[in-house]
Amino acid sequence: MTPIKQENIQVGEIANGLPLTIPVYRLKGNGTGPRVYIQANMHGAEVQGNAVIYQLLEQLQQQTLAGDITLVPYANPIGCNQKSGEFTLGRFDPITGTNWNRMYQSHLPLVDTFVAEHLDSSLSEIKNQFSAALVQATQAMLDGPAYSINTGKRIALNLQRLAHEADIVLDLHTGPISSKHLYCPEYAKASASYFNIPHVLLIPNDFDGALDEASFCPWWALSEAYKKQGRDIPVLVEAFTVELGSQEKIDLTEAKADAASLLSYLSYKEVLLNSPFKPQAMVRYGCMLQDYLAYYAPMGGMVEYTAVLGSHIKAGDTIAHILRMERYLSEQPLHSITLDKDAIAILHFASASVNQGTELYKFFTNYFEL
Amino acid sequence: MTPIKQENIQVGEIANGLPLTIPVYRLKGNGTGPRVYIQANMHGAEVQGNAVIYQLLEQLQQQTLAGDITLVPYANPIGCNQKSGEFTLGRFDPITGTNWNRMYQSHLPLVDTFVAEHLDSSLSEIKNQFSAALVQATQAMLDGPAYSINTGKRIALNLQRLAHEADIVLDLHTGPISSKHLYCPEYAKASASYFNIPHVLLIPNDFDGALDEASFCPWWALSEAYKKQGRDIPVLVEAFTVELGSQEKIDLTEAKADAASLLSYLSYKEVLLNSPFKPQAMVRYGCMLQDYLAYYAPMGGMVEYTAVLGSHIKAGDTIAHILRMERYLSEQPLHSITLDKDAIAILHFASASVNQGTELYKFFTNYFEL
Amino acid sequence: MTPIKQENIQVGEIANGLPLTIPVYRLKGNGTGPRVYIQANMHGAEVQGNAVIYQLLEQLQQQTLAGDITLVPYANPIGCNQKSGEFTLGRFDPITGTNWNRMYQSHLPLVDTFVAEHLDSSLSEIKNQFSAALVQATQAMLDGPAYSINTGKRIALNLQRLAHEADIVLDLHTGPISSKHLYCPEYAKASASYFNIPHVLLIPNDFDGALDEASFCPWWALSEAYKKQGRDIPVLVEAFTVELGSQEKIDLTEAKADAASLLSYLSYKEVLLNSPFKPQAMVRYGCMLQDYLAYYAPMGGMVEYTAVLGSHIKAGDTIAHILRMERYLSEQPLHSITLDKDAIAILHFASASVNQGTELYKFFTNYFEL
Amino acid sequence: MTPIKQENIQVGEIANGLPLTIPVYRLKGNGTGPRVYIQANMHGAEVQGNAVIYQLLEQLQQQTLAGDITLVPYANPIGCNQKSGEFTLGRFDPITGTNWNRMYQSHLPLVDTFVAEHLDSSLSEIKNQFSAALVQATQAMLDGPAYSINTGKRIALNLQRLAHEADIVLDLHTGPISSKHLYCPEYAKASASYFNIPHVLLIPNDFDGALDEASFCPWWALSEAYKKQGRDIPVLVEAFTVELGSQEKIDLTEAKADAASLLSYLSYKEVLLNSPFKPQAMVRYGCMLQDYLAYYAPMGGMVEYTAVLGSHIKAGDTIAHILRMERYLSEQPLHSITLDKDAIAILHFASASVNQGTELYKFFTNYFEL
Repeated sequence: MTPIKQENIQVGEIANGLPLTIPVYRLKGNGTGPRVYIQANMHGAEVQGNAVIYQLLEQLQQQTLAGDITLVPYANPIGCNQKSGEFTLGRFDPITGTNWNRMYQSHLPLVDTFVAEHLDSSLSEIKNQFSAALVQATQAMLDGPAYSINTGKRIALNLQRLAHEADIVLDLHTGPISSKHLYCPEYAKASASYFNIPHVLLIPNDFDGALDEASFCPWWALSEAYKKQGRDIPVLVEAFTVELGSQEKIDLTEAKADAASLLSYLSYKEVLLNSPFKPQAMVRYGCMLQDYLAYYAPMGGMVEYTAVLGSHIKAGDTIAHILRMERYLSEQPLHSITLDKDAIAILHFASASVNQGTELYKFFTNYFEL
Repeated sequence: MTPIKQENIQVGEIANGLPLTIPVYRLKGNGTGPRVYIQANMHGAEVQGNAVIYQLLEQLQQQTLAGDITLVPYANPIGCNQKSGEFTLGRFDPITGTNWNRMYQSHLPLVDTFVAEHLDSSLSEIKNQFSAALVQATQAMLDGPAYSINTGKRIALNLQRLAHEADIVLDLHTGPISSKHLYCPEYAKASASYFNIPHVLLIPNDFDGALDEASFCPWWALSEAYKKQGRDIPVLVEAFTVELGSQEKIDLTEAKADAASLLSYLSYKEVLLNSPFKPQAMVRYGCMLQDYLAYYAPMGGMVEYTAVLGSHIKAGDTIAHILRMERYLSEQPLHSITLDKDAIAILHFASASVNQGTELYKFFTNYFEL
Repeated sequence: MTPIKQENIQVGEIANGLPLTIPVYRLKGNGTGPRVYIQANMHGAEVQGNAVIYQLLEQLQQQTLAGDITLVPYANPIGCNQKSGEFTLGRFDPITGTNWNRMYQSHLPLVDTFVAEHLDSSLSEIKNQFSAALVQATQAMLDGPAYSINTGKRIALNLQRLAHEADIVLDLHTGPISSKHLYCPEYAKASASYFNIPHVLLIPNDFDGALDEASFCPWWALSEAYKKQGRDIPVLVEAFTVELGSQEKIDLTEAKADAASLLSYLSYKEVLLNSPFKPQAMVRYGCMLQDYLAYYAPMGGMVEYTAVLGSHIKAGDTIAHILRMERYLSEQPLHSITLDKDAIAILHFASASVNQGTELYKFFTNYFEL
Repeated sequence: MTPIKQENIQVGEIANGLPLTIPVYRLKGNGTGPRVYIQANMHGAEVQGNAVIYQLLEQLQQQTLAGDITLVPYANPIGCNQKSGEFTLGRFDPITGTNWNRMYQSHLPLVDTFVAEHLDSSLSEIKNQFSAALVQATQAMLDGPAYSINTGKRIALNLQRLAHEADIVLDLHTGPISSKHLYCPEYAKASASYFNIPHVLLIPNDFDGALDEASFCPWWALSEAYKKQGRDIPVLVEAFTVELGSQEKIDLTEAKADAASLLSYLSYKEVLLNSPFKPQAMVRYGCMLQDYLAYYAPMGGMVEYTAVLGSHIKAGDTIAHILRMERYLSEQPLHSITLDKDAIAILHFASASVNQGTELYKFFTNYFEL
């Protein structure tokens, strides 16, 4: 049995002075494989990742590990406990509105200096020292004056410091009502086929504050900076946002299947030795991020969502009915809503009640087989 | 075709001075049958009633009506439009926390005087004049100084005034995640079998601020007051809260079935003439209100709800798993939760994420066949 | 120096499994004086009571105490940390809307049995044994099945258990924007003059769920029940809700003055020996609870509050201007709002932006010198 | 008397199908002066700008106008009416968390093509045609598929279209608890002295989604693009965010003074002819945006704000006390908080109750006399 250790890290304090802490679970590998960081529940309503971490812990104890694995459930102790009615209002800081997953730090400014100073370093030196530089830059921000860091940034930096110690980063999220999909950096497309996830978003090297980007952007930029200097090095870190399905739901059986999906990928990456976990055979569809279409409600009303999530929609198919009971006699009370292009329906809004302009659906358009 | 007329009533003003209005649809009967009042969406997230009113309007135009029918969708223009994250935070006034369905007015104080003054009136006089007295007492409150009525009370009184004009009142609600059930005053138990709803809560003559109670309590008290005077009169008004299923959902097909259910009851009450709507054969289960058990989360955690709604639970059956990932190593991470008596699972909380003491489930206990 | 001891009581658990705890500070007296319980911040935004408890702790260490004193800041660990924008949304449970100060338990049903069993007991036996009965009944609820108590009830019962151990209960609150005022049970009117608070609400023996009521109602009812049996005993417990001023504000200087006000009352009650704290000379005004007028906004709009809090308004005086910029040309954009009776302005709403029916002001009417 | 005209523009629909409308007031000038656009209350709690527009309308009718003036109170009909407790939660979209004042559109991409096509156009041609291009580009987005624009964007674009018709744009905001200050683009520094506002933030040409930036950035970029082509043209539009003081407050007297301040600036810009409005003599302090310091709470707790807003703080001065009552015995319960540099205190948080990392204050540092 591989032993598990727990520590708790403090990431803030609330108004009555109580500490905000996050549990961190660690399993040690034999040191020959890549190090892994997995976190869940950065957005308060997206709880299923905690169940996946539970199932991972149950499984990993049975496995032989080549690399160290760090698992962090309940990554956001504020978001996790912020209720508004029955709903867990944990997508953004309730004070400022800032999305909790847009507060990680870009360390892109480190790249050019690093490359200049390590032009001829060995690949393993580059890997170790750039990783150390990222950890150190993150820690330096945490060590700055207490007044210089806001609440969400302090949580994010504490997590990011852990993530920069790893070669593989998995941030477990969910959509509102959603089919499973994966945010995958373009360079790691080959890895996407080892997850049991049929829908893959390929994202470019743009930093927008999320953990996956904070984790891979500097390494991707590093690879490109070396290329400019005439040296080819691979991108040495892979990071993914895994969208497990719908928010506000715990399903332990599904969590076990999702754990198997992640373990399949980790086996491919040789984190597990002699692992039984293999990817399922399935058709996987890809979509470039710029083709990921947000479809906003063309009118206010009460929505019956009719597009099956994961299904392939034809241009002109009805994707929703919008009911408007305010003027039953003088206008059409029931509207059929269509999309004007072929698409895969990935997720939809969690409520039937929408304003004009509420994000109704997200669609893969111009999708392709991976 | 029975024509429909629309009017809009103003029930308040918001901060930027815009009026709060509610659409009111009316169909006229031939005057021989009972008058009906149906409203929906008093709680903002409970939208399915609007779809039922849509389907009722579609059907009622085809029918011959003996009694007038008034239908009010979007009964609460504040609750209907109050968002907090994706969730419609419309169960209570966001300023005060007061449940929107606890602000109706008790007119029980009218009963004794009325009986004293109408001891020997005919049944139809009693019906007409007590109904008029209720309408008038409600109107008098609305006509009082503008500073004497709060926001929710003004909305409630405007709706209650309409309801007091009717002999049958149906208030369409939903639970959070819920099977269909009906709040039925004990005296109207016989009527419950004409709805296609398998679960019936029998409620006593206690006023707690809801529309059904505001509608039937005075009439029930009236009947009892006459009885004390040695005269037997029936309770002349029936009022029900119809719980259609889950919140935040529009399902037009289900709404059509629910409309048929309401029309079956209205046909039984002879509001519709030569109606094709008949109750479905089904076993209906009753439960006294004091046996309607709220089951609060015995610990904080992440909940997998395992009791199928509408299903019959045996004492000791697992009804939920609660996952606790904070102390995976030092305490049991997964708890099986049981109920210590036989029950029917009626509804459960809408989120997997609960505090200790969050209402997890509601159960029929000591239930019986109706 | 009188030593202070701290314990922490657990009153619940949040979704990520962390305990909700409340700090409890205790100072021991020599046992000859009444026991005192003081709590603050049951409503999340009403923080000034914490500062008053701070100043009390600073002072009480210097004093000789006849009675034990228990002080509980941060009484509500959920409400205290619930933000919505900059505002502390801590007046009601964010899930249910229930006011946190309406969840205490009425032990009135204990009274009749107790009197029957202790008809001829000595006054001190009555005091000790009824106090013990209240503590025990509260504890019994906490010891019931975990699934039978909701979140707010569990917090309230834990506090109430502490309060029932005392002879004097002070619950520190604030209004939204407010002058100082005191909720005082009618029988304790004489005590009101020992607080440095110019406005006193005299409240009857009706239980509505608040801590002061939960504390004094059973004792008041006990006194009345003995009277029915022909025996006169005083009401043996005094409980007050102290409204310290405005919410969302900490003012340490004002807190010191408020501490002196409470210490003046406690000196009068002989909790402190040889105390320097005396009531200030001031005219104190009383108002019966039924004359405490809630003035709701007669229209929606933007409000300039012009009545000075604590000031005496004449009937017809302008108390507010309401600006309406929606129809500047077609209706009056600026309205002067008046009250039609003489009054003292006690508090007003915290925002300029109001719906029709928002509680604008509360006024003492039919007030009198105490 | 200069007449006022009103129109209402529809900027969306809410869930019950009701239109979201905004009132637009227009006064016509003689055509010789610059056109002006003034809006207020884009953030729901920042209501004082509505009162300033009221006072402006009262004054402007008495004046002779050279330029057209458009005034828009209640600019955000969702934010204006979003309550959470007493607080107007109108800073961000309650569904998404996006700041309502970060959703305007950057038209910077238009600049290069325009300059290429209008290299030798006259200044007035440039002004008219670039203004028309901005209006047209904004309108084109509104004319796109209804599903392509989210709720906040639709509101913002409707307002931005009006703003692009003007040469002077004033967006009226407030801070939480705040002294008056002005966001002024660096090139318009000379204009800042005509407002009666002692604190001026000088902002660079960076687009971050706000209305002032959306209004001036393209014109500033245009000026610089012409300079690259060897032609010097001034920045033809001025846009400011005017921070009027504290949120949630209406003060009609102060609003009249603020109206006079704006009219002083408009007189200087020759929008008003023969105007009596002159700037007050006062020392005005400037601060570069990068020196505008956000000071986050170094610990969670209850804050007494002691820095007087508008006052000049010396390095090491106490700016706040933070009270922590959780561990009164084992740690320091009262902390004095200082800033390590000289500064002017501009605004502070609206609540005493803060988490570690809540924005406590904003300070001008490295400030200078304008």
